[in-house]
Amino acid sequence: MLQRLDTGPRMSEAVVHGQTVYLAGQVADDTTLDVAGQTREVLASIDSLLERVGSDKKHILQATVYLADIATFKDMNSAWDAWVAQGHTPARATVEAKLAAPEYKVEIVVVAALA
Amino acid sequence: MLQRLDTGPRMSEAVVHGQTVYLAGQVADDTTLDVAGQTREVLASIDSLLERVGSDKKHILQATVYLADIATFKDMNSAWDAWVAQGHTPARATVEAKLAAPEYKVEIVVVAALA
Amino acid sequence: MLQRLDTGPRMSEAVVHGQTVYLAGQVADDTTLDVAGQTREVLASIDSLLERVGSDKKHILQATVYLADIATFKDMNSAWDAWVAQGHTPARATVEAKLAAPEYKVEIVVVAALA
Repeated sequence: MLQRLDTGPRMSEAVVHGQTVYLAGQVADDTTLDVAGQTREVLASIDSLLERVGSDKKHILQATVYLADIATFKDMNSAWDAWVAQGHTPARATVEAKLAAPEYKVEIVVVAALA
Repeated sequence: MLQRLDTGPRMSEAVVHGQTVYLAGQVADDTTLDVAGQTREVLASIDSLLERVGSDKKHILQATVYLADIATFKDMNSAWDAWVAQGHTPARATVEAKLAAPEYKVEIVVVAALA
Repeated sequence: MLQRLDTGPRMSEAVVHGQTVYLAGQVADDTTLDVAGQTREVLASIDSLLERVGSDKKHILQATVYLADIATFKDMNSAWDAWVAQGHTPARATVEAKLAAPEYKVEIVVVAALA
């Protein structure tokens, strides 16, 4: 009944329930990047996970953006605005929060509909 | 299949999927207000968005309250408690987080059912 | 149409909508415990609420873990890893946030499917 992707001992990267998919908080692989670069990596991971369950960025329902430093809001948005599907933008909230490791500058949580 | 309200280039204020609506994080228009006043504005925005999709505060499933200063918890609650529908209160979590601009004292994210 | 548990004047501990249940942010009863102990209490509360609506930890879709001090990430995970259902791990995000009272070291928000 539930479909999971990349199920590890602590979490799965995605869980599908009915017509809705919940993604784990995505962070960058290359943590030497600045916040725009890390955001681009995070958004690429979201694209990839959504594609694997048959969805895409046009079907994102809710995004929660956590920034390690809210002063990087504009830089994060430069990457977000270039990526998000015009005419299909999700509900979104952005807040500052320290993340699991200090090298992470941004983490994004997404809930999406299946396509 | 998805219905959106107030779709801008960065986000939509609401996205309806099946019987569920996801609202963007709501903040006050008048940021000179104290936290109780800002909370009242936020809750009025939530009422308005829910009404536009055919829902109302009795159908809120989940609320996430972000306070710029957790010391204002009691003041936020004074506005919340006066507003929330008795007998129909949602699941809720409240945490402290710096918000997108320093003048914002409270931001609330809501997921609701259609009525 | 909506089923609620422990509905108080401010929030409910759980709200069921269709095949999905949303839990309020859970915190420990015994706030003298360290973060691992508080996490165990939180997870026991989640087990109990899920059981009351006919679900269980194998059906958790999304977990959001708020830590008052992100330096306790490893200690929280020691309790989480011992509890989570192997092969059925949820999507998860963990961030630092001050919680409603300073004695709370961890709060967890869960969205789950009915079993």
